[in-house]
Amino acid sequence: MSALQPQPQPFPLPLSRLSINQETIKQWSLPELAEGCAKEGIGAVGLWRAPVQEYGVERTARLMRDAGLAVTSLCRGGFFTDPDEAARARALDDNRAAIDEAATLGTDTLVLVSGGLPPGSRDLAGARERIAEALALLGPCAEDRGVRLAIEPLHPMFAADRCVVSTLSQALDLAERFPARQVGVVVDTYHVWWDDKAPEQIARAGRGNRIHAFQLADWITPLPAGVLLGRGQLGEGSIDFTFFRDQVETAGYTGPIEVEIFNETLWERDGTEVLRETAERFRTHA
Amino acid sequence: MSALQPQPQPFPLPLSRLSINQETIKQWSLPELAEGCAKEGIGAVGLWRAPVQEYGVERTARLMRDAGLAVTSLCRGGFFTDPDEAARARALDDNRAAIDEAATLGTDTLVLVSGGLPPGSRDLAGARERIAEALALLGPCAEDRGVRLAIEPLHPMFAADRCVVSTLSQALDLAERFPARQVGVVVDTYHVWWDDKAPEQIARAGRGNRIHAFQLADWITPLPAGVLLGRGQLGEGSIDFTFFRDQVETAGYTGPIEVEIFNETLWERDGTEVLRETAERFRTHA
Repeated sequence: MSALQPQPQPFPLPLSRLSINQETIKQWSLPELAEGCAKEGIGAVGLWRAPVQEYGVERTARLMRDAGLAVTSLCRGGFFTDPDEAARARALDDNRAAIDEAATLGTDTLVLVSGGLPPGSRDLAGARERIAEALALLGPCAEDRGVRLAIEPLHPMFAADRCVVSTLSQALDLAERFPARQVGVVVDTYHVWWDDKAPEQIARAGRGNRIHAFQLADWITPLPAGVLLGRGQLGEGSIDFTFFRDQVETAGYTGPIEVEIFNETLWERDGTEVLRETAERFRTHA
Repeated sequence: MSALQPQPQPFPLPLSRLSINQETIKQWSLPELAEGCAKEGIGAVGLWRAPVQEYGVERTARLMRDAGLAVTSLCRGGFFTDPDEAARARALDDNRAAIDEAATLGTDTLVLVSGGLPPGSRDLAGARERIAEALALLGPCAEDRGVRLAIEPLHPMFAADRCVVSTLSQALDLAERFPARQVGVVVDTYHVWWDDKAPEQIARAGRGNRIHAFQLADWITPLPAGVLLGRGQLGEGSIDFTFFRDQVETAGYTGPIEVEIFNETLWERDGTEVLRETAERFRTHA
């Protein structure tokens, strides 16, 4: 079960569905995030491992609990594609730690960025197979802790250096080798919006009860160098969010909707202002 | 029939299969390109409309003929997605001119970059439908001139601003509404390398005799701002060219193999040096 358990809602979207991924307001510390969200009536957040580890995992869990905030996901496990045995063992250990951290934070969803091509390799199929091997080892361990592994297909522009899983179809081909209570997928509009097969794959994921997270960010151009920080505020770009929300809801998803935007312009602004703008865009565009 | 008609060849690739797209050595004028290729034993080139128009279409045709160079493709027609009637009529006229230019240059292949989302639009499906409408009008006109329209799926990172046709599957869905002698596809490794469905779609294209061009460029990271000029020299990046060459040849393609790299570092170097390097990489990596 998801950390939030809202009922299907009519348009416009109620704020109770909104989860703010902390990277959207990266300028805020965890206490600022907790206080800011509580003050603005936001009930849920998505967290990242590095800031949580820095603040302390137990301490973060307490902070969020005290502020009345649900944690809807933890980013990120993964990076499974290195063929070197020692590197691989380290990655598995690190993912076991990530599962523990998710459980401690009270979220049932660990987002996986699966890893790119190893240096010098051109073997996409081999890299994808190493992801499956890692999932076989980690799935039962996650299930023991009440955590689901959520494979996030990343936009194909990240296939070489970040994630060889580029489509929902590929993510589901991997996930379906395992029980849905262990492995599912993330539907992130930024990564899948261009794909005419996304609707049928969202339906497939829904049939298997494998939509473990639904994330929003807009697609804007021109892309910046390195392309990682090129995501747009909702409504600034090319993505029809209502279309995707309709797809995931038709597929049976009633969980939280996380806004996760990496954008340096947003990070330079006042955090409260960004939070209010994001909440407003969520109501009007999602 | 293709401008070049080579037979299937064993590895390594003979230079007779190589066509140099003029953008790869953009620092060269058309006369420099003709002279440089002739001197290095390269028998074919791919051309772009703007430099050809500037030099003169008839004059370019004569220049290439005199140098013994086949023209394997002309880039580019397309940009069909603007819903404004006047803009649409201009685009169609421009494409009719491009067909004439291709015929004059003696190439049977006009590459199409179909166009991105119109400003403010989020309707990918609608934009794709406008491409089909344009193809219906232009296909017969192209056939009359002995020219085939070759839909180039561009990498999904260009879906918003350049080309809403992002996969071979989408390109073939469009092309197959028309006779193969009118409309086919371009297989460009740079755009499709990440796609696990590319091999089955290459086979589908081959069965329909719709592989109208095969182009090579490597995928390198990090991508530069704007991402357009981020292509890599063969062998510098993540793409297994032998794999793709095998796929297109198994699908029945025996035509020219065009190297088309947009890269400012290559453009800053001596043209002959880039041509020699490209030919060498072609023999060893493709």
